[in-house]
Amino acid sequence: MANLLLKNALILTMDQALTTVQRGYLQIRGDRIAALGEGEPPFSEEGYQVLDCSGKIVIPGMINTHNHLPMILFRSLGDDVADRLKRYLFPLENESLDAPMVRAGADYAFAELLFGGVTTCYDAYYFEDEVAQAAEACGIRAVLAETILEGPSPSAKEPYGEWAYTKWFVEKWKGHPRITPSVNCHAPYSNDTEHLVAAHDLARREGLLMSMHVAEMAYEHTGCVERYGLSPVAYLDSIGILDEHFLAAHSILMDEADLDIYQRRGVKVSYNAGSNAKSAKGVAKIRQMLDRGIPVSLGTDGAMSGNTIDIVTQLSLVGKIQKLFNGDRTLFPAREILQLATIGGARALGMEGEIGSLEVGKKADIAIFETDSVNMSPLYDPYSVIVYSANPGNVESTIVDGELVMHRRQLRSMDFGAVKARLLAYQEQIRQTAAELDRALAEG
Amino acid sequence: MANLLLKNALILTMDQALTTVQRGYLQIRGDRIAALGEGEPPFSEEGYQVLDCSGKIVIPGMINTHNHLPMILFRSLGDDVADRLKRYLFPLENESLDAPMVRAGADYAFAELLFGGVTTCYDAYYFEDEVAQAAEACGIRAVLAETILEGPSPSAKEPYGEWAYTKWFVEKWKGHPRITPSVNCHAPYSNDTEHLVAAHDLARREGLLMSMHVAEMAYEHTGCVERYGLSPVAYLDSIGILDEHFLAAHSILMDEADLDIYQRRGVKVSYNAGSNAKSAKGVAKIRQMLDRGIPVSLGTDGAMSGNTIDIVTQLSLVGKIQKLFNGDRTLFPAREILQLATIGGARALGMEGEIGSLEVGKKADIAIFETDSVNMSPLYDPYSVIVYSANPGNVESTIVDGELVMHRRQLRSMDFGAVKARLLAYQEQIRQTAAELDRALAEG
Ligand SMILES: [Zn+2]
Ligand SMILES: [Zn+2]
Repeated sequence: MANLLLKNALILTMDQALTTVQRGYLQIRGDRIAALGEGEPPFSEEGYQVLDCSGKIVIPGMINTHNHLPMILFRSLGDDVADRLKRYLFPLENESLDAPMVRAGADYAFAELLFGGVTTCYDAYYFEDEVAQAAEACGIRAVLAETILEGPSPSAKEPYGEWAYTKWFVEKWKGHPRITPSVNCHAPYSNDTEHLVAAHDLARREGLLMSMHVAEMAYEHTGCVERYGLSPVAYLDSIGILDEHFLAAHSILMDEADLDIYQRRGVKVSYNAGSNAKSAKGVAKIRQMLDRGIPVSLGTDGAMSGNTIDIVTQLSLVGKIQKLFNGDRTLFPAREILQLATIGGARALGMEGEIGSLEVGKKADIAIFETDSVNMSPLYDPYSVIVYSANPGNVESTIVDGELVMHRRQLRSMDFGAVKARLLAYQEQIRQTAAELDRALAEG
Repeated sequence: MANLLLKNALILTMDQALTTVQRGYLQIRGDRIAALGEGEPPFSEEGYQVLDCSGKIVIPGMINTHNHLPMILFRSLGDDVADRLKRYLFPLENESLDAPMVRAGADYAFAELLFGGVTTCYDAYYFEDEVAQAAEACGIRAVLAETILEGPSPSAKEPYGEWAYTKWFVEKWKGHPRITPSVNCHAPYSNDTEHLVAAHDLARREGLLMSMHVAEMAYEHTGCVERYGLSPVAYLDSIGILDEHFLAAHSILMDEADLDIYQRRGVKVSYNAGSNAKSAKGVAKIRQMLDRGIPVSLGTDGAMSGNTIDIVTQLSLVGKIQKLFNGDRTLFPAREILQLATIGGARALGMEGEIGSLEVGKKADIAIFETDSVNMSPLYDPYSVIVYSANPGNVESTIVDGELVMHRRQLRSMDFGAVKARLLAYQEQIRQTAAELDRALAEG
């Protein structure tokens, strides 16, 4: 495989100084960025596959820090229904979910990520080894974990059956160049103190990121106060598991004391703007978090919550919801939102030395936007164009680890037609199960 | 031009009963829908251009009820800047805007609408005859008005110079099959009582829709209370200009008494979800409006406010912002949001007898979505897929008045390359003027 050379590109490096290269080159050698600068490359182009990026905007690959990828199998089912998890998702997961189905969902979800310029994703679901195999095959970078909860779960019928899976999974995947195992506990309300502490011990021992849904649900808050007399965040802190290797998803229902704890412990946050809004859960206080130096990144949650799992769609939502909620149109300028999607994601995953910005020596994880489509002109501010005007269909090419995995809207690392056919093969079965659940409910 | 016949289509008619045709046909004769039903057409296909819509979702063309189309010239300029109107827009409009520039902007904006499945748009700007000519040429349906304000304006230097323009414009365009003139006063704070009343008289006399920005700005509210001791809505009602031919844009800062007035007078509303959020102005109470029977439609405002002017992008925003603001995920199910975008728009413009749903006898204004793209599967609920997953790039074809104006992402009624070149020809000049304005500000 020839090394890549991008030429004539408008490059948003997202480095510390937010360096913008108006028209320049980016040289890739193997899996890393070897050189980058204004104008023509000062070296021979021989041996390189040259991509002419005239009229393109080149940014670091986007990073999605919270997902349940195989839930894409159930997308568009039960939207707008109050009890959709209990009514559809849990029965569907517990009755029909198996490893091949998870693989079919994961393949399809990774296709959506690569089509949308996402080069790294954090995921936690069941049968996670299937997700890891899908990630390995398609060439994406991923931080992956089996979901630990009291249970039963689709992949383990006995209480905390996911523990053995997690240990096996960590052993299997640690050291992989693109796939990093993680430890994931579902939530404070679905794990007991003993297992939360043990999970944290495991993560520390193996040097892994620990992640969890935190301060997301009203019943989570009420339950924690009832059981421990503490908010979920204060409870997690009281048992000693919050630290700079802890990634907290959602974190909506937070007061000043909770923010103090995150700041003091170095906790990282995955902000899920679209999912939080659609579920009417509230608005995470990410302005206050960022002002306190708490690292904030962007996630989408599963496709049954937020429908699309690309990050481009989140960018404009983040701006609109945060400006509205804070009553200030000047907050979150476009370039800060793009930081959350790139270097912010890298920080959240503890990978800021390797990914999240386009700098010499970092991994070559890149998204290239076209500006031919009608929504991409005029172009006074490329950050604004990407944040407020672009949609995931404007991503023309995606590079992970120096490999061109999506180019000119074609996936090169998987057969999208076959992947789609395998997803749709489950559609009729899922539709019928959902209809049966509806009938059972109607009959009481 | 052959009549069109759509076959094998999933059709969301958006009629009163929300009839969904799972796999059927839609027959167009001339500019109208002649037949529609399940299965194969029960007539000969001879003489028809047949579009095989297998795997496509067919909906009524979407309706954008508030815009300032040529402002697309300035898109991505000054986003996130507090005083962007006074700092950039007003100087740019007053110093450089002329008729050819308006035409260039209008052509480009109409291209974006047609690419996005918008078949009818309400617009108010300056040199509106240029907008009308652009609409006539590209084949879109439009309700258009010159903006009346105290002035000066880019197209009239003397106070209320837009009055003469408006009368001439109404005379010129009334009776056109696709272009309907309207009377537009900018806002309560930029027109005096005498001219507001006269504008309403003109609209009544000519049988035209009157539209205005209402209850949008905090200073508008304060000013009205100071001058008249009334809210903007109560003031407009006190001078007798609110009725069922009045389309109020924004209508954010509304109390119960204001809602009472809208309900009593039959006022129609254009809800601008994206623009209102990005400008941090607040959330319009459209749940209460709809519950009171006040017709609500969707608009985008100009592209300097909301960036994109298609309606698909608004759909998910409407759901997310309204669910979040009302604290209830079950509010605004996807099909109700799609109603706002289609039949709701038709009602707002007083055209519900002609457009807004796919019914025999109505105008053939249609948007066709592909479901090949990764974000469009699975498809348990087509309303959900369009509202929560689709982006404007998923619109494959657009039909207005029975004419296929956009097909397979190609405009057939205009040369998009030429239209884009004419827009971009202004880019450097606008960029330089903006830079000069920045310098002047920096130098005090
Ligand atoms: Zn989640
Ligand atoms: Zn407006």
